[in-house]
Amino acid sequence: MVTVLKLGGSVITAKDEPETADTDAIDRAAGAIDSALESGEQLVLVHGGGSFGHHHAAEHGVSTESGTDNSRGLLAIHRAMGELNDIVLDSLQDHSIDALPVRPLSVAHRSEQADLSFPAGQIRSMLGEGFTPVVNGDVIVHEGKGATVLSGDTIVVELANALDADRVGLCSTVPGVLDESGDVVPAIEQYEDVAEILGESESTDVTGGMAAKIRRLLELDVPASVFDLSALDTFLKTGESGTVVR
Amino acid sequence: MVTVLKLGGSVITAKDEPETADTDAIDRAAGAIDSALESGEQLVLVHGGGSFGHHHAAEHGVSTESGTDNSRGLLAIHRAMGELNDIVLDSLQDHSIDALPVRPLSVAHRSEQADLSFPAGQIRSMLGEGFTPVVNGDVIVHEGKGATVLSGDTIVVELANALDADRVGLCSTVPGVLDESGDVVPAIEQYEDVAEILGESESTDVTGGMAAKIRRLLELDVPASVFDLSALDTFLKTGESGTVVR
Repeated sequence: MVTVLKLGGSVITAKDEPETADTDAIDRAAGAIDSALESGEQLVLVHGGGSFGHHHAAEHGVSTESGTDNSRGLLAIHRAMGELNDIVLDSLQDHSIDALPVRPLSVAHRSEQADLSFPAGQIRSMLGEGFTPVVNGDVIVHEGKGATVLSGDTIVVELANALDADRVGLCSTVPGVLDESGDVVPAIEQYEDVAEILGESESTDVTGGMAAKIRRLLELDVPASVFDLSALDTFLKTGESGTVVR
Repeated sequence: MVTVLKLGGSVITAKDEPETADTDAIDRAAGAIDSALESGEQLVLVHGGGSFGHHHAAEHGVSTESGTDNSRGLLAIHRAMGELNDIVLDSLQDHSIDALPVRPLSVAHRSEQADLSFPAGQIRSMLGEGFTPVVNGDVIVHEGKGATVLSGDTIVVELANALDADRVGLCSTVPGVLDESGDVVPAIEQYEDVAEILGESESTDVTGGMAAKIRRLLELDVPASVFDLSALDTFLKTGESGTVVR
């Protein structure tokens, strides 16, 4: 059983304070993952940038669409994401999870037509050897544009398909997609179901808000859940939680 | 024209002092590379571990043959190599070279039969966009063994073949392969030519000394030169220097 789990950048950082990790939230997530892995689960962890990546990306004018060939700017974004990746790795290892980093800049790229190539053989081997790969949103080379942002959400969809994942979870700051009354929408089968109620997240986010997440999750072959940190345990135990996108 | 250039770990670090970079040597190499790149050359830079990687690898019992599934040990080796990679990147960027990192743990792995897989599409794209990829010797997952060391020398051969490189250079601490009288052997066409005179390097080196280098270079389709830092300029200008392995 392969699970691809994303920890949103807003979940694991103080999103409006530059480069500040929410170490309590990371530790709580690591504890929940530890319990799930004990039962033989293979897990790929993806995390967003939050206050580590987005401010740097905005400063250098880089998004998923707009690129730069300024390698100093790219390296600043990449290194900030690396710091957050290191904090997540250390927390997982403190919970005795054999976590190893996978940094997208080193492996992925986009063609001029924006087709993403993200070879996943190394991740399959890590899982087979009992390691837990930890992949961060990053900048990657984009032919004709220098380099652009590869969001955690896009990585989740790409790797879930490449690894033939059984379960996909997005741990967010909200308990799911909320309707007009603030209740969790239990299931989404097409984008039109929720087009009207979806807004964009309020903090600086170069990778799009909930609307973009749902569009991407609808591309998956397997169900994907959107939930908050309090429901991570439930997701890992049952495979579903919050809003389920099929 | 694609050049794959390796800077030996002993060239860019004080090999017997843990985690000490030779910043003067790195700066000198960056200057020579800058001159070469100005003439439109595409270059992939590979560097060894020197005093950053080898001590950690020895401490955790990891070599190109012996693996470990201790992720803390692996992360210690990988991070030490990352520190050296960062120093090299910064020096190149100080010379206005648009250098970006490629960390093998994130992209490569070995099968149970020790076959190396190192997808190179991201490196081709970096070169096409005017970036200079900087690849370090690293630990990578090795099926059945946890993870083992991937040496800079092996990376050079792998990438030179994958990228169809025109020129390969190994910048070492010696001016080439030396014969019994201490003179540089100008050319090697088969291992037997030099089997008797090749010793092993004296410092801790988990990736083998000159003998292993020459064996690997003989696998290449293009000529490869072994030279020291004083001859890097000549190599970059003429494509040959020191001992040429064909």
